Amino acid sequence: MADKDIVISIDAMGGDKSPKIVIEGMALAAKSNPKVKFLVFGDSAKVAPLLQKFPELDKVCELRHAPEMVHNEDKPSSVIRNRNTSMFMAIDAVRRGEAQAVVSAGNTGALMAISKLTLRTINKIHRPAIVSIMPHLYGRYVMMDLGANTECDSVNLCEFAFMGEILARRALGIERPRVALLNIGSEEMKGKEEIKQAAQMIKNSHVDMNFIGYVEPHDIQNGVADVVVADGFTGNIALKSIEGTAKQLVKMFKDAVKNSFLAKIGLLFMLPALFKIKKIMDPRLYNGAMFIGLNGLSVKSHGGADAFSFSKSIENAVHLVEQDFIPTIRQEVDKVDFDELQAVMYDY
Amino acid sequence: MADKDIVISIDAMGGDKSPKIVIEGMALAAKSNPKVKFLVFGDSAKVAPLLQKFPELDKVCELRHAPEMVHNEDKPSSVIRNRNTSMFMAIDAVRRGEAQAVVSAGNTGALMAISKLTLRTINKIHRPAIVSIMPHLYGRYVMMDLGANTECDSVNLCEFAFMGEILARRALGIERPRVALLNIGSEEMKGKEEIKQAAQMIKNSHVDMNFIGYVEPHDIQNGVADVVVADGFTGNIALKSIEGTAKQLVKMFKDAVKNSFLAKIGLLFMLPALFKIKKIMDPRLYNGAMFIGLNGLSVKSHGGADAFSFSKSIENAVHLVEQDFIPTIRQEVDKVDFDELQAVMYDY
Repeated sequence: MADKDIVISIDAMGGDKSPKIVIEGMALAAKSNPKVKFLVFGDSAKVAPLLQKFPELDKVCELRHAPEMVHNEDKPSSVIRNRNTSMFMAIDAVRRGEAQAVVSAGNTGALMAISKLTLRTINKIHRPAIVSIMPHLYGRYVMMDLGANTECDSVNLCEFAFMGEILARRALGIERPRVALLNIGSEEMKGKEEIKQAAQMIKNSHVDMNFIGYVEPHDIQNGVADVVVADGFTGNIALKSIEGTAKQLVKMFKDAVKNSFLAKIGLLFMLPALFKIKKIMDPRLYNGAMFIGLNGLSVKSHGGADAFSFSKSIENAVHLVEQDFIPTIRQEVDKVDFDELQAVMYDY
Repeated sequence: MADKDIVISIDAMGGDKSPKIVIEGMALAAKSNPKVKFLVFGDSAKVAPLLQKFPELDKVCELRHAPEMVHNEDKPSSVIRNRNTSMFMAIDAVRRGEAQAVVSAGNTGALMAISKLTLRTINKIHRPAIVSIMPHLYGRYVMMDLGANTECDSVNLCEFAFMGEILARRALGIERPRVALLNIGSEEMKGKEEIKQAAQMIKNSHVDMNFIGYVEPHDIQNGVADVVVADGFTGNIALKSIEGTAKQLVKMFKDAVKNSFLAKIGLLFMLPALFKIKKIMDPRLYNGAMFIGLNGLSVKSHGGADAFSFSKSIENAVHLVEQDFIPTIRQEVDKVDFDELQAVMYDY
């Protein structure tokens, strides 16, 4: 493989419909990203015939046999001890420098555990976070943590804010992203202690960041912040509430149309307008949660992703590699004076 | 006022457009609830002329002058010391037994503080909770706590579950409501310590409840639970995420129609079907958060409510009075063996 190519490592066995949709997703991503090459890890007896169906993709792939795979019910504590799974081997290729990022649709807990063990957290960062890019009414925003850290202290929240800010610059191309802590009120006295403390720490630190204070969940959609920071429990609750409500409304709309002849006619007239909404809101566009805070990029596709959706995970990874995300975050975090933050914490 | 009448105490000065929409809301509620009488507290110079506009309503109202009112920016610590506000007087009428419930669109923190001080928590209950009734795809569910208690321990969560179960029976008429704790996974090991502990406590207690374990936010909409229990921070985050997403989708739909001539034609055909959705999802239908766990019923209307929306808050209150909610919850909670719960907690 040439020196300047982007190489993405793929766990071909992760997800509900693997390896089929994984390979189909790669084929889609390869078409729109001609500079990308793939290192593919999986059961070669199953993966090789699928690759042969896509000769153009096959040319940019190197398939390596993985004798085992991680299952959905596997515990993180056990998967980290098995170096023969497609997931472990795919992540390890990033550690060895053979690939710049790994994409898997497998078990989230396992992917995080192996990524942490193998890639290690960046110097000064205590915990990696799971991040997604999501749509608001006027663009996109970065949302984190989505579940890696159920309980967080104020230092963790600050670290997430710093990392999320860098991600928003690199992934969304926003020069000075507005960073906010997710809270249940906008007044300073509202919310949990660790959130209030984190706000103080960021304000008092010398980190040059456009910190705008608190954001409430119903204001996110109005595009008031580019980076929304929460602990993993709260972020996961918000994310799943948003997803659930969107699905509920779409289902109600579909059912209403299905049960009305008039509405079916109306739908025909409305299709172009609805298509525009779909082009913004389609959850498949936002597939690919990024694990950040590690010395390498791990991207987690939804387990039930289809080929289009999986291709978006790959494109997320490719884009961040092109943007030098990992070298940037390592350099910038290195400059942050974390002792200063701690001092604020003990003063509080 | 006759003995068997339902008397609702009204804070006429609470909310953004008071007293105008309060009186208009009362007029709407009075029409559909002929058995209801009102005790109205407010600035009589402002309220009396409004009441005269609705002679039918005026007949069932007793107006009492309140020289002062609670403002949005007032702190709970200060409002509890002023007995001359319309809010304080309205709540106090419930304590004195002159009314069976109070409805206010004023400052939530103030309403909770005065309600707690005046009505007191039910014997054995540590903290009251804020509860709303919300729509899922196949009906309605009870969601709590929505923000009264930012931090909760496992005992608080258990108490919320017991109270929510009683409310679901009385308010929704469900014989054996399915009660769930809001969490980020359905497996037993997922989530925060206090949630896992509360689940154990409920399971090991002798309280006869249809406890179904954990529910994730995106499953709420599928109607898997009738009572969803969370601490006030988590519940508030979920509620506002749901509201924000629904508003975002509605706005996108409206904008899409506004910008397309074809879509406008389509909308005409679709109106009856969309009207059906509105009849289920209209947030005004769900106005009126109930404070439960007190020796009297306080209902909080949204501060920006319109008259229709405010009338729904009144109807929530009336319905719970008709269903003997307060005597029921006091009796049933009295039977719960809370020492048993505590024992489980210390065993954990």
